[in-house]
Amino acid sequence: MTRFALTLEFDGTPFHGLQRQAHGPSVQQSVEEAAQAVTGEKVTLHSAGRTDTGVHALAMRSHFDIGKEIAPFRLMEALNAHLRPNPIAVTHCEIVPDDWHARFSCVGRAYVYRIANRRAPLTLDLNRAWQVPQELDEKAMHRAAQTLVGLHDFTTFRSAHCQAQSPVKTLDRLDVERIGEEVRIHAAARSFLHHQVRSMVGCLALVGMGRWREEQLAEALEARDRQELGLNAPPHGLYFVRAIYPGEDTTT
Amino acid sequence: MTRFALTLEFDGTPFHGLQRQAHGPSVQQSVEEAAQAVTGEKVTLHSAGRTDTGVHALAMRSHFDIGKEIAPFRLMEALNAHLRPNPIAVTHCEIVPDDWHARFSCVGRAYVYRIANRRAPLTLDLNRAWQVPQELDEKAMHRAAQTLVGLHDFTTFRSAHCQAQSPVKTLDRLDVERIGEEVRIHAAARSFLHHQVRSMVGCLALVGMGRWREEQLAEALEARDRQELGLNAPPHGLYFVRAIYPGEDTTT
Repeated sequence: MTRFALTLEFDGTPFHGLQRQAHGPSVQQSVEEAAQAVTGEKVTLHSAGRTDTGVHALAMRSHFDIGKEIAPFRLMEALNAHLRPNPIAVTHCEIVPDDWHARFSCVGRAYVYRIANRRAPLTLDLNRAWQVPQELDEKAMHRAAQTLVGLHDFTTFRSAHCQAQSPVKTLDRLDVERIGEEVRIHAAARSFLHHQVRSMVGCLALVGMGRWREEQLAEALEARDRQELGLNAPPHGLYFVRAIYPGEDTTT
Repeated sequence: MTRFALTLEFDGTPFHGLQRQAHGPSVQQSVEEAAQAVTGEKVTLHSAGRTDTGVHALAMRSHFDIGKEIAPFRLMEALNAHLRPNPIAVTHCEIVPDDWHARFSCVGRAYVYRIANRRAPLTLDLNRAWQVPQELDEKAMHRAAQTLVGLHDFTTFRSAHCQAQSPVKTLDRLDVERIGEEVRIHAAARSFLHHQVRSMVGCLALVGMGRWREEQLAEALEARDRQELGLNAPPHGLYFVRAIYPGEDTTT
């Protein structure tokens, strides 16, 4: 068996998330079916993150094992041919050691959240960003965000369905910047709780609108109570952008 | 009658172009129907450019006249409400003098063309960029492009259906830059011939692939012969990005 690591880009709109689901199409199912069409083997895809319905990825990292001998480039091309017309693309494919695991070897994950801060409905960015018509104070959002950075109990920002053993995580980065009418939020950590990024973004948006004082974000964190969550931002603004592995160049 | 100038953003994918067509939906028809729904009046939309099927706009400028008294902001909000679910948004609306004309007063037009220079199929940028798998030399493309800038007879780069009286136009700008895997082409002129931008981009791509020598672009121009056209780039990479009017601030 040979282990192949894939980098996946996908538009999450038509999928019930990355992980295989009984009740609807998933990215995992599409990739596994493409791999089976190429190799004739039943394969299982493992991925760095488990994105929800509607969440996008620019560079998800995944792996599977196959017995058939095939060059990585040829496998990538064949997978892409079989993935059409699903909006999933394999942008990189390589052979990795058998002990390399897309999920368990991953030591860092990064997300970007895009807010279209405008009154007009979205056209080209429909399903690609969260439209927020109220003017957002991105500087206040950035200041408030810094109170979440570091080692904390993130119970407030955790989904009821979260399967993580502990709500204690270290948030490495939560930066808010404005690029024209877009407010972009960058989040990075070794790992995140279920809904953590969207929950943090939702509360940051309340700060940006002036509906929450900046200190309220830290107060919500300290409450360690899901009831204190102000708002869960919708999935279609969220992008999984990077997974980091030991020994890999992380500068790009 | 009051003349309202609109700024329109649209995803051109579902439309048979901007201009009203007998055989399919158009941006013009959608906006006129929305305006009629709001005002009860039959209106005619005039626009700075006539984009083809699949071509997008970030800031098309248009106008129409209506008799009903309504504040520009309210009109914009009502139009946007009636435009749903069409991917068209009114991003700005203002009252202009009766002699201001979106098409005839316009003294400058700018387009951007996006090439996704990658092997992998497009996902999030599907219908938003032209995928070119061969590696493009954007510096060669930029150098070649400069031979088209200035006053020329652009017959080679003109559609058979072009209605312009003269093929002689002054091209003010044709810049090629690379942003990661994207090659972006910026074109600006007082006005363009039908298919001119897409025709120029198609030939530039041939230069970028090394299938045309850089000098061949100038040779094709000098031939003044549509038969010399190498390639017409597809519409879905093209964006109308700006229309310029006398007295308006053009720095933004």
